[in-house]
Amino acid sequence: MSPKLTGEILRQLRQAMRNCKYFSEPIQAYIIPSGDAHQSEYIAPCDCRREYISGFNGSAGTAIVTEQHAAMWTDGRYFLQANQQMDNNWTLMKMGLKETPSQEDWLISVLPENSKVGVDPWIIAADQWKNMSKALISAGHCLVAVQHNLIDVVWPDRPERPSTQLRTLGLEYTGTSWQDKVTMLRAKMTERKIGWFVATALDEIAWLFNLRGADIEYNPVFFAYAIVGMNTIRLFVDLKRLSHPVLRDHLQLDAPIKPELSIQTFPYESVYTELQAICAALGPKDKVWICDKASCALTQVIPKAHRTPIPYTPLCLAKAVKNATEIQGMKMAHIKDAVALCELFAWLEKEVFSLIQKRKEYRNTDFVGLSFPTISSVGPNGAIIHYRPLPETNRTLTLNEVYLIDSGAQYVDGTTDVTRTVHFGTPTAFEKECFTYVLKGHIAVSAAVFPNGTKGHLLDSFARAALWESGLDYLHGTGHGVGCFLNVHEGPCGISYKTFADEPLEAGMIVSDEPGYYEDGSFGIRLENVVLVIPTKPKYNYRNRGSLTFEPLTLVPIQVKMMNTELLTKKERDWVNDYHRKCREVVGAELERQGRKEALEWLIRETSFIKDH
Amino acid sequence: MSPKLTGEILRQLRQAMRNCKYFSEPIQAYIIPSGDAHQSEYIAPCDCRREYISGFNGSAGTAIVTEQHAAMWTDGRYFLQANQQMDNNWTLMKMGLKETPSQEDWLISVLPENSKVGVDPWIIAADQWKNMSKALISAGHCLVAVQHNLIDVVWPDRPERPSTQLRTLGLEYTGTSWQDKVTMLRAKMTERKIGWFVATALDEIAWLFNLRGADIEYNPVFFAYAIVGMNTIRLFVDLKRLSHPVLRDHLQLDAPIKPELSIQTFPYESVYTELQAICAALGPKDKVWICDKASCALTQVIPKAHRTPIPYTPLCLAKAVKNATEIQGMKMAHIKDAVALCELFAWLEKEVFSLIQKRKEYRNTDFVGLSFPTISSVGPNGAIIHYRPLPETNRTLTLNEVYLIDSGAQYVDGTTDVTRTVHFGTPTAFEKECFTYVLKGHIAVSAAVFPNGTKGHLLDSFARAALWESGLDYLHGTGHGVGCFLNVHEGPCGISYKTFADEPLEAGMIVSDEPGYYEDGSFGIRLENVVLVIPTKPKYNYRNRGSLTFEPLTLVPIQVKMMNTELLTKKERDWVNDYHRKCREVVGAELERQGRKEALEWLIRETSFIKDH
Repeated sequence: MSPKLTGEILRQLRQAMRNCKYFSEPIQAYIIPSGDAHQSEYIAPCDCRREYISGFNGSAGTAIVTEQHAAMWTDGRYFLQANQQMDNNWTLMKMGLKETPSQEDWLISVLPENSKVGVDPWIIAADQWKNMSKALISAGHCLVAVQHNLIDVVWPDRPERPSTQLRTLGLEYTGTSWQDKVTMLRAKMTERKIGWFVATALDEIAWLFNLRGADIEYNPVFFAYAIVGMNTIRLFVDLKRLSHPVLRDHLQLDAPIKPELSIQTFPYESVYTELQAICAALGPKDKVWICDKASCALTQVIPKAHRTPIPYTPLCLAKAVKNATEIQGMKMAHIKDAVALCELFAWLEKEVFSLIQKRKEYRNTDFVGLSFPTISSVGPNGAIIHYRPLPETNRTLTLNEVYLIDSGAQYVDGTTDVTRTVHFGTPTAFEKECFTYVLKGHIAVSAAVFPNGTKGHLLDSFARAALWESGLDYLHGTGHGVGCFLNVHEGPCGISYKTFADEPLEAGMIVSDEPGYYEDGSFGIRLENVVLVIPTKPKYNYRNRGSLTFEPLTLVPIQVKMMNTELLTKKERDWVNDYHRKCREVVGAELERQGRKEALEWLIRETSFIKDH
Repeated sequence: MSPKLTGEILRQLRQAMRNCKYFSEPIQAYIIPSGDAHQSEYIAPCDCRREYISGFNGSAGTAIVTEQHAAMWTDGRYFLQANQQMDNNWTLMKMGLKETPSQEDWLISVLPENSKVGVDPWIIAADQWKNMSKALISAGHCLVAVQHNLIDVVWPDRPERPSTQLRTLGLEYTGTSWQDKVTMLRAKMTERKIGWFVATALDEIAWLFNLRGADIEYNPVFFAYAIVGMNTIRLFVDLKRLSHPVLRDHLQLDAPIKPELSIQTFPYESVYTELQAICAALGPKDKVWICDKASCALTQVIPKAHRTPIPYTPLCLAKAVKNATEIQGMKMAHIKDAVALCELFAWLEKEVFSLIQKRKEYRNTDFVGLSFPTISSVGPNGAIIHYRPLPETNRTLTLNEVYLIDSGAQYVDGTTDVTRTVHFGTPTAFEKECFTYVLKGHIAVSAAVFPNGTKGHLLDSFARAALWESGLDYLHGTGHGVGCFLNVHEGPCGISYKTFADEPLEAGMIVSDEPGYYEDGSFGIRLENVVLVIPTKPKYNYRNRGSLTFEPLTLVPIQVKMMNTELLTKKERDWVNDYHRKCREVVGAELERQGRKEALEWLIRETSFIKDH
């Protein structure tokens, strides 16, 4: 892949930075974060401003452009990719390496005295604004909010904001009505003496109202804001979307049963002025909850005396603990996904082909869409951790290389995310050795027993211990929360060496378990299951705290050919055999029912028992 | 042990809270933190104000007294002990339990509107002040600095602040002169454009000047402050202590070689006014470094525009990485300590007696003092995690109970801290099972290989995995930094599930590895070695990051009788055998040289080889 040529748009951007049409005085630096106004992880094309200015399209990165420099901060997953996608105008800042300066330190080192640094307040989080602003002020500079986004100024053919059709979800999928969810939210607010709650995260809004959209690829969400008071519910969304009778009925827009559960609707853009009006009418003791990761623009509308920022909203916390209906849905979705994958792998073994286009066909039952872009990579491309095939770099599947496929789907009853690494020929001893360390890490997390109240980051090292012992590692976290027919990545839980303020794991939470190993220029290995947190009863029960463990929801065989089974302990071999037995029982029954004979034969072969040596 | 009767002193304290002699308006609540003005972990008797008011003498706890209530916050180590030591006037607030309110939330729930909450600004850290103050203000109350400590007001026979003799340490112990340390500090200051550094932690000051004192039991430190500028060094200490010629010579007080290395001395108490004078003369861009855990009183002397608080000072970071001389000293100290312990255990087996008084006699070579009060407990007392024998509860050593001894010493070349759990009769199957899980955890940490840059908290779960698997756990961290002839507990590194902002482990750092298990009312188990972080070279070297592991400095046999060796893996048995071989070689040679025949025989017997089954 050749890098995007950015000389001309950088020239235009710098002109806009000097152009007093957009602000009172020129700015000496402009920060371009990755996100949209909703802290979304995946973003709509109209919000891909950092990609537009730099060419780098990885999921994480922050660009800063000054008069002289253009620099891009990204993490270990993207070092190779960013280097390939950006031209010489850009300097790559490798986050996580000791010698890499922070954005603040770098700005302070390159800016002339008394500089102004601009940023769009709608796409920088309030807490990031605060930290950046503090650092700049302490060095004699200042951070200014540029209301007119300067990338939009230099982006002539910027796409429109999407406004896809909304889908309602009934109780058979959600288990809880939106009215009950609002009532539970208000109970939390009463408990903490909070009068208003501003919802900005798109998946929280979709979850609250039991609605789904398709505004952002892979994430079944829609652009909206919501503000919930003790007696009112305000929903901000493109009003055209609410015309369908089914929707109006679902939201009880025309005949609300109770006044406090009546939803007032407003245009998406009016959230700023409505929130201003609400704040103007606040009593002296009224408090407003907003996520501390919400945009600086919206956060600062709420006067400081009334503002109560929280790291995780009550919606985020409630959504993370799946109810029985949601868990059942997730289980069903994973069986469907396993069926699709067995078919695919069985077919793959017969036909060597370029994979990526075939994927959708195999997932046909209740299949809504992918939950993220499939990562399908061969040989050295696997070492680009989140590689997506592009025409220029796509490699043909061969018998001689490690093949990594990470894909997920949205079903109406659940979301899947699975990675398998396989070899259709004969893996090298080193490939097998690395695969086995990754497998040991995967098992160590999946089989871990831990007390109630344990935070996910305390489990991260279990996934790495076998790799570390041989001097190996991987530069990404081990797992993320998974939504239920919602975003494939969701908070507030996760398994990562980064000690973000994650919430303790609870029974009902669903996370991924996905250690890996990436050998630059050669191959990539990752092994990922989606796992459900479940209670377990070990021999003892210290202080009656109770214990938790994981149950794999993903049921796709792990290729025994890639394992050096002599490196596995008896306990680990037993785990693999038990897991494969479950795959055979559950997915095998479904393949049989559907009459998919070849896939069934493949499944039985791939799940054969590993003997003790 | 019967609780302290606190009715009368609480009455007096509440009178003082209403008494306008000490402040303009009465206060409705008074906070009594544990500490002194230097963030010391162990404190001098004159600073034991929280113990005086409540009777509870554990190392951690915060008391809050209001007109109606008296409440004590402490953590899981001290729940049993605090309950036993406090009378009915006090409510125990068990930190770490879900239902326990934070101090802020509790205050807000009990205080009448518009209350004033008082605290001594010298013994509350600046960051704690900030958090508490913010929470109180948001609920309509306020936090006020009470300059005159109210416990001192109601404490007629409060002891004097200690002023023990100072000891100088030469290069043969320190490896680096104080002049070179000051120069290194200034280099760090120049790098970060910092003009002044205020040192408040006693061990940092002792380390900087290569001096030791005995002001605080177990910690060879002395009460002092230091302020270092680019051209001046100011030391605040009881001036009587500086009269000895050896000291004056060591500090070059009478004939400094270079002007910028000349030390000006001031009385201890004048730090406030001197810092005020320094701050009054600061240029607009001058910055002052102070630890963010320093006292609120001293921190607030520095105007906000000049203040640069840091979580760990450059002294703390430099001190943590021991130089070759210090490492050698620590090794020597641990051999001496192992000799003393072998003697003690050999003798113990012959004579069953009440231990505690005998301990000192056995450590005789270069022995300076204990590094903390010996914890020596039998049977159920072992379950009080930091139990110290008191006449009322002391139990006689018997053949039927688990015996836990945690003790450490200060030698001029190093500091030791070791815990062993033994049984002189026949342990029960459950005691052996628990001991073996603790041993597995100890080994998992001690033998762990991990990449450079790893923070200690990522290793904590290794110590717990075996306990967790059986539903067990312990409610304390796994390890702490250890000073070199300095405090037995020191930052900035540690191994704990609490994700305080610890610094990455580096070769040369020294920490303890001390998992445990405590069965309330029955027995306590802990197994502790002091371990040195060392580089290691596993098979591969991912991204040239390099790897680290631990080398045990403590060389005292682990009782095989307490192990259920069938629960150990081959790798774990090999670890125990290797460790015991090293004990035999190193300590055995020393015992032989000293002609301690009985101890040598005991050592050889206790380190016999565990066979594979």
